[in-house]
Amino acid sequence: MQADNLRVVLVSPRNPLNIGAAARAMSNFGFPRLGVVNAYEVAFREARSAVGASAVIGDAVECASIAEAVADCSLIVGTTSIGHRQLQHPLRRLEYGGRLLRRALATERVALLFGSEKFGLSNDDLSWCHWLIRIPTREDHGSMNLGQAVAVCLYELIRRPTTGKPELRKAASSAEVDRITEYLLKALRESGYARTQSTPAKIRRMIRRLNIPEKEAEAWMGMLRQIVWKLGQE
Amino acid sequence: MQADNLRVVLVSPRNPLNIGAAARAMSNFGFPRLGVVNAYEVAFREARSAVGASAVIGDAVECASIAEAVADCSLIVGTTSIGHRQLQHPLRRLEYGGRLLRRALATERVALLFGSEKFGLSNDDLSWCHWLIRIPTREDHGSMNLGQAVAVCLYELIRRPTTGKPELRKAASSAEVDRITEYLLKALRESGYARTQSTPAKIRRMIRRLNIPEKEAEAWMGMLRQIVWKLGQE
Repeated sequence: MQADNLRVVLVSPRNPLNIGAAARAMSNFGFPRLGVVNAYEVAFREARSAVGASAVIGDAVECASIAEAVADCSLIVGTTSIGHRQLQHPLRRLEYGGRLLRRALATERVALLFGSEKFGLSNDDLSWCHWLIRIPTREDHGSMNLGQAVAVCLYELIRRPTTGKPELRKAASSAEVDRITEYLLKALRESGYARTQSTPAKIRRMIRRLNIPEKEAEAWMGMLRQIVWKLGQE
Repeated sequence: MQADNLRVVLVSPRNPLNIGAAARAMSNFGFPRLGVVNAYEVAFREARSAVGASAVIGDAVECASIAEAVADCSLIVGTTSIGHRQLQHPLRRLEYGGRLLRRALATERVALLFGSEKFGLSNDDLSWCHWLIRIPTREDHGSMNLGQAVAVCLYELIRRPTTGKPELRKAASSAEVDRITEYLLKALRESGYARTQSTPAKIRRMIRRLNIPEKEAEAWMGMLRQIVWKLGQE
């Protein structure tokens, strides 16, 4: 995927905080090209001059129309929370649509459109789109905050498929666990702890289940050794 | 996954807009349980009384300590953008960590901790955690906005794995495409268009590549039929 093949286009955004948040998410995930169409002038200026504004917003292109903002793109995808409008476009969940976007971004310029905070993309805006993406929110509360919607879509684009098993921390060796167990058993004997239910085998199993990390085996042995030493002194 | 097994915990949040945004993302993705630890009082009150505040924030639990906020949870996971701190915990990318969280949420209560806007989770905060999650942001600009970080993490939890092929729109049948092609060829003949390079076979291939959707085949035929009729009249 070529991240700079993507143009994120905010259509009629009204809130400078949202414009700034969208730009920040783009910077976080490494997408540099922002276009802003028909922004409320003051909002765009405020977002631009905000403390901590990213380079993304400094380089943002201001356009008078969607046509202008997407002119160099060959795939235009809109976002929607499907409200009351009857959609005339193929609509894909973000997980699937994101895959198609990633594939397209390898070879062509793509525009991803986000509508205004209040109304989303209008039917006229949507007529520029080849298809639409829906973030899989709850039906009862589908509409997301603009900055959050941008962040979630871009995350899906940079997300790695998880094929293998998640990595696990390296556990202590069996010999180390055995030594820890021996110290604990000794400490228990020395301190007069004795219950018929807690046989050495049961305690051994309990310690195995702790899955002590390799890195910390030494520290556990040190603590128990000290306790055993102290118990032996009395 | 049981969404109400998750408690999202905001530790020392300072900005009412971020508290509100976190709650909104929770509502969007269907996670009802929010805990707020050591919040700046005014910020929490403002977030609660904001216009459009979700039920999530109304039901949020205010806690004096992390211990209290996570008391009923058996897995505690922190979020970090790994800054300068040396991390003492297993650290997992969100894609992998999210999988472990989903699995845990099926059977146990889990807390997901987010630190303050400025400092993230402190080393003391982290000592409550079993392991940590990192959203895979760019190294040069790793730190995300709080509300956006919550949205991205929760999206990962509700996201569906995409195993099958992405659905494709149903294309027009070959017979329909042939009729469209015939009308176009007729219109071209009638209008005197004739170039040696544009053989009927070439035009047929061009139309096939358009991959006209089934739903729109009728409309295309209608337009071309009308054009052909008009051309025939002159």
